[in-house]
Amino acid sequence: MIAICPGSFDPLTYGHLDIIGRAALLFDRVIVGVGRNRAKNALFEPAERREMIIEALAAELPDAPVEVRLIDGLLVDYCAEHGIDVAVKGVRLAADFDYELQMAQMNRRMSGLETILLPTSAEYGYISSTLVRDVARFGGEIDEFVPPLIAARVAAAGGA
Amino acid sequence: MIAICPGSFDPLTYGHLDIIGRAALLFDRVIVGVGRNRAKNALFEPAERREMIIEALAAELPDAPVEVRLIDGLLVDYCAEHGIDVAVKGVRLAADFDYELQMAQMNRRMSGLETILLPTSAEYGYISSTLVRDVARFGGEIDEFVPPLIAARVAAAGGA
Amino acid sequence: MIAICPGSFDPLTYGHLDIIGRAALLFDRVIVGVGRNRAKNALFEPAERREMIIEALAAELPDAPVEVRLIDGLLVDYCAEHGIDVAVKGVRLAADFDYELQMAQMNRRMSGLETILLPTSAEYGYISSTLVRDVARFGGEIDEFVPPLIAARVAAAGGA
Amino acid sequence: MIAICPGSFDPLTYGHLDIIGRAALLFDRVIVGVGRNRAKNALFEPAERREMIIEALAAELPDAPVEVRLIDGLLVDYCAEHGIDVAVKGVRLAADFDYELQMAQMNRRMSGLETILLPTSAEYGYISSTLVRDVARFGGEIDEFVPPLIAARVAAAGGA
Amino acid sequence: MIAICPGSFDPLTYGHLDIIGRAALLFDRVIVGVGRNRAKNALFEPAERREMIIEALAAELPDAPVEVRLIDGLLVDYCAEHGIDVAVKGVRLAADFDYELQMAQMNRRMSGLETILLPTSAEYGYISSTLVRDVARFGGEIDEFVPPLIAARVAAAGGA
Amino acid sequence: MIAICPGSFDPLTYGHLDIIGRAALLFDRVIVGVGRNRAKNALFEPAERREMIIEALAAELPDAPVEVRLIDGLLVDYCAEHGIDVAVKGVRLAADFDYELQMAQMNRRMSGLETILLPTSAEYGYISSTLVRDVARFGGEIDEFVPPLIAARVAAAGGA
Repeated sequence: MIAICPGSFDPLTYGHLDIIGRAALLFDRVIVGVGRNRAKNALFEPAERREMIIEALAAELPDAPVEVRLIDGLLVDYCAEHGIDVAVKGVRLAADFDYELQMAQMNRRMSGLETILLPTSAEYGYISSTLVRDVARFGGEIDEFVPPLIAARVAAAGGA
Repeated sequence: MIAICPGSFDPLTYGHLDIIGRAALLFDRVIVGVGRNRAKNALFEPAERREMIIEALAAELPDAPVEVRLIDGLLVDYCAEHGIDVAVKGVRLAADFDYELQMAQMNRRMSGLETILLPTSAEYGYISSTLVRDVARFGGEIDEFVPPLIAARVAAAGGA
Repeated sequence: MIAICPGSFDPLTYGHLDIIGRAALLFDRVIVGVGRNRAKNALFEPAERREMIIEALAAELPDAPVEVRLIDGLLVDYCAEHGIDVAVKGVRLAADFDYELQMAQMNRRMSGLETILLPTSAEYGYISSTLVRDVARFGGEIDEFVPPLIAARVAAAGGA
Repeated sequence: MIAICPGSFDPLTYGHLDIIGRAALLFDRVIVGVGRNRAKNALFEPAERREMIIEALAAELPDAPVEVRLIDGLLVDYCAEHGIDVAVKGVRLAADFDYELQMAQMNRRMSGLETILLPTSAEYGYISSTLVRDVARFGGEIDEFVPPLIAARVAAAGGA
Repeated sequence: MIAICPGSFDPLTYGHLDIIGRAALLFDRVIVGVGRNRAKNALFEPAERREMIIEALAAELPDAPVEVRLIDGLLVDYCAEHGIDVAVKGVRLAADFDYELQMAQMNRRMSGLETILLPTSAEYGYISSTLVRDVARFGGEIDEFVPPLIAARVAAAGGA
Repeated sequence: MIAICPGSFDPLTYGHLDIIGRAALLFDRVIVGVGRNRAKNALFEPAERREMIIEALAAELPDAPVEVRLIDGLLVDYCAEHGIDVAVKGVRLAADFDYELQMAQMNRRMSGLETILLPTSAEYGYISSTLVRDVARFGGEIDEFVPPLIAARVAAAGGA
């Protein structure tokens, strides 16, 4: 079984790492799929984000069967073309759930792609990339929310 | 009793058709009120959307007492000027509900306009124009989500 | 169009009155359908509740085309047998909505019965019969939450 | 990977079948774990429920690697003793999610048991055993909500 | 300013301690108000619960200006009689919030009693007395969820 | 104890006034912290908003120990530098709550800043600055939602 963890990862947080690591225990192989960022206020380009995730995974989950790819186009098309069986999404809040439920039902209808939702670990429930970006923009400390390599990159980029 | 189904309808989905058709069974006449689109990434101009809805209704709900109009300005003002008694909104999710509750209470306070919420049919609960636009932009199939005439128009516009 | 406002009404609150009165403006006739109380800790018997609602409606909504009935069995069966077109439910909160959405979809599937949800008026959003019963049990004042005739009955019953 | 679908299944619905069948595509083996019913108003004894599920699975999912067991005690203990890797729960609504999130986080803390949430298929989102029991008690038709074998058993038990 | 933390505390959890400790930093004095337990399946009598909280607070928050009392009757009446200015409630989930919003609005209407909601600390968000009671009943470990003194008492009572 | 009510206040509504006034009864001093507006479609500049709030507070809450300041940068940094003990946020809806819970947990983690949530008064639960701006843009009456001085300013600015 091959799973994909799709997202913007702008930047990767401890919350994302938690989901990726747990997905890697459930499935034979996990693709981290870095999408085009739809946010107006992106911190990093998709290619940079991919690079940063590769570095962070090497440090934090060195033995996990995880691969990082840029994905373009529709998730269902990408999964069909690359033999991916299931999408894995972290959910933190009831509001997240409402959105993920819709996306999951739409994707199943379009191609049969299955989605599983992993409840975020309690200690990371409040972390979101959006809030991390806001903190970084104002020069706040983000060490509690992202791995050291990511924090360093954000600082180097002038974000913190 | 005259009801209005206000919305952006960019584009009209099977979810919208479900609500419009059910409203037409409850009230003497139903106005589909096409509003200015506030989305940055609109697919169609309001006038086109109106045209597309007229075509789709002719095919899907030929005998329903429904009329399609462009509306501008505040919904409460439009309803007061045109003798419309009640607004009808579809609600799919708890998150939708929270927003519609606010709007409904505000509109009642402003002009006494009543709003009724129709729970979406189970099979259309996951369809939203926003997700349909995303799918169309990437060239995905939208036939499951919108009537054939709408799908053809979206394809002709290069959206799918 | 004939509508039904089903509920336990143990006891009738200002929130219920608001919904019944608004339903009476939308439909030709409104049945207030007093169901068997499933609560373990009912304050009044169904027949008493019906009587109390009749009295309260006579005082508060004297001209509304409203009738109060005891209903037994399934709501969909009752509506089919009595030519009732639509059920009207008040919704106050996202949590209410999730439950009413389910009920509405199930009822539509069973018999085609349509359900409309009326967003509670802002000033009554916090009133529930359950909380009113709790207050009454401890001898608290319930005048803010129920019509005078109901408050007097509750007091006479030793509830307040 | 062995998964468990825990629940009361009083009675098994099409919603349950959907989740069990999808879990069976994701994992090597699926245990349907029939728990003690905490509902005051149970329709069937746990042993009967287990029997009914076995019959229904034989008819509806004959080739799925699924086994039905009575489980007692804590889910985390049962999984630890029987080498079960992951719990699978269906989620229909934001309110469901809030509860399942709590349970999942508590179970992970107690034993490391992982929980995945599967978003219910759109067409079954409104079905719950509780509502089915209510309908059955009043003699309503439940054929839309449960497999034929289950409906027959409910009818035979005087429930419908 | 005197605050009250009302609840059943059957039993006291780390989540409760978190709220009580934070309330004690915000207000001059905090009353922990142990209410009558409405749960059918209570583990401890109110008087025992009060005793257990006193012991646990002595160990965990020895210097906090906190007092533990049994309260009966309506919270608003108790607060009015004892000069308590504000109620403090922990909220973990959107579903909690909906309920607490209602209670808070009702209490303000009845007596002017103000309620503040403290968002639970991320790491305790999943702990509830109800789930702890369930775990204890099945002999599960509850050390992660309640202070040592409470766990010992629960074990002594045969609960774990 | 010094509290801050942070927000955009574009424009100040009766809902904001309710929260500020109640915070002023709970704490020794309240700072209204006017942040940079992140909305694309702001009505007023931060400095104007500050001025308008000062005027409105002088009229509506003349004796409250409230001060209005422009704040820039991270809330946690501002509070640390200015000896502010607690942030006070109004919450109207479950969806608000989900967002505020995240923000509160993130802020506590960053600097220990405590956040308390005040449930909005029932009669203001539907008012949001976003909806008020929309109404004003279309020339609608906003007198029910904002104090007279604010409504006059909005009208003068051509907003209504």
